[in-house]
Amino acid sequence: MLSREEIEERLTFARAVVEDAGEIALRYFRQPLEVENKLTGEKFDPVTRADREVEARIRHQLGGAYPNDSIIGEEEGTSSGSSEVAWVIDPIDGTRAFISGVPAWGTLVGLMDGNRCVAGMMHQPYIDETFIGGPAGAILHHRGAHIDLKTRADARLSDAILYCTHPMHFESEADLASFYRVADASRLYRFGGDCYSYCLLAQGQIDLVIEGGLQPYDIIPLIPLIEAAGGVVTDWNGEPALSGGNIIAAANRALHAEALALLNG
Amino acid sequence: MLSREEIEERLTFARAVVEDAGEIALRYFRQPLEVENKLTGEKFDPVTRADREVEARIRHQLGGAYPNDSIIGEEEGTSSGSSEVAWVIDPIDGTRAFISGVPAWGTLVGLMDGNRCVAGMMHQPYIDETFIGGPAGAILHHRGAHIDLKTRADARLSDAILYCTHPMHFESEADLASFYRVADASRLYRFGGDCYSYCLLAQGQIDLVIEGGLQPYDIIPLIPLIEAAGGVVTDWNGEPALSGGNIIAAANRALHAEALALLNG
Repeated sequence: MLSREEIEERLTFARAVVEDAGEIALRYFRQPLEVENKLTGEKFDPVTRADREVEARIRHQLGGAYPNDSIIGEEEGTSSGSSEVAWVIDPIDGTRAFISGVPAWGTLVGLMDGNRCVAGMMHQPYIDETFIGGPAGAILHHRGAHIDLKTRADARLSDAILYCTHPMHFESEADLASFYRVADASRLYRFGGDCYSYCLLAQGQIDLVIEGGLQPYDIIPLIPLIEAAGGVVTDWNGEPALSGGNIIAAANRALHAEALALLNG
Repeated sequence: MLSREEIEERLTFARAVVEDAGEIALRYFRQPLEVENKLTGEKFDPVTRADREVEARIRHQLGGAYPNDSIIGEEEGTSSGSSEVAWVIDPIDGTRAFISGVPAWGTLVGLMDGNRCVAGMMHQPYIDETFIGGPAGAILHHRGAHIDLKTRADARLSDAILYCTHPMHFESEADLASFYRVADASRLYRFGGDCYSYCLLAQGQIDLVIEGGLQPYDIIPLIPLIEAAGGVVTDWNGEPALSGGNIIAAANRALHAEALALLNG
């Protein structure tokens, strides 16, 4: 198992790597670019060159520094290492936001130790923000400023702000109906946001994120951020969020229970 | 009627005023703040102290420099001047984004000469962007860089990206159904965005914005930006957008006609 010092050291290194790779992403952001369809089937799933280049850069640098660690990336899959430690990379989370010019996408990197995600970060280079969660807590780095992040401990459903990237990402009508049971009981619900929503939850700006159809790499790097800020994130059964799927993140335990009951009732 | 030079001079002055007022808005953005309800009725319409202070600052500065111009603001209403020239101010357009910590809100200032909006701007201080439209064209100022803005001239509905702030802002089920006729024929539609969406349309990142229930001050300052970048913005009858209500903005005339036909048929 990694010591706290080993986690912190990896986190510092990974932050530099991710912020460096942000320069690559910015070369493609808000430029005319060819969007390719990853799936040849019906689903619209744009992948940009940025996606591939950012992941390649991060893999190369992390792999060079920590050759025994595994690396799991959205684009290139898994390179297995000899240790229990694994990096989880989503180079451009929120590709639809990216191709729309909306700076709600981010580069996600998480650090797994065995089956626990012990640290993670989201970097948004256009706004110049890096949200980090780890043993030292949850912090936002924004243009040289360091801001400690804390969820709203007292938020209850009737005064909660709820975000969800898009209603069509739910996998069934029943899931959508479950979402609306919570949405209708909240103070305000909005769509859009992508990975940025989880960061705003960590910062105490919004209180709930409820989504469907997530991949593991969409959520794993965000788990330590949410938890270190005081929040709770699970699947809709209240189980660990590591497998993706239907996810609920809440600002505090009481709100999580309140929303989960409505989702399942 | 204002000369081109008079318009440009006012635009330069107003940009400085708006960017200065952005500092006020940032004092309240992402801070714990009390949100008041403007309407005591059923509708949720948050207004923040930022809204009032930003408008007061802008009114004070514009009124001092151009005492004969009228000023029409969301918060304080109309101060009538002796000329045909009027400033239209929405201090924080996108208050729901603002209270959620999402930097898709902006300060809008438009310049009317008689019944024509001849120049306008949107300032987003957290990202440090000012989108300006006027006689000299459409420009984005972003952290010292100046970027000429141009809509996608060749976008057609089947490859268009469509934005809409929220489905619940449409005033009837029929309007919502009209929206979905266009959305279902587009390449991609997303919710969220607020005034930021019109700026991304001007920048050629997205191609359509379709919304309901806008106030005049929500759209007037954005009209010159959209038009100077090559776009078209009207109400759903194809009439000038100056009165707000149901609005459609499109990247080009052909796309506008295509979407308008579906909206109304």
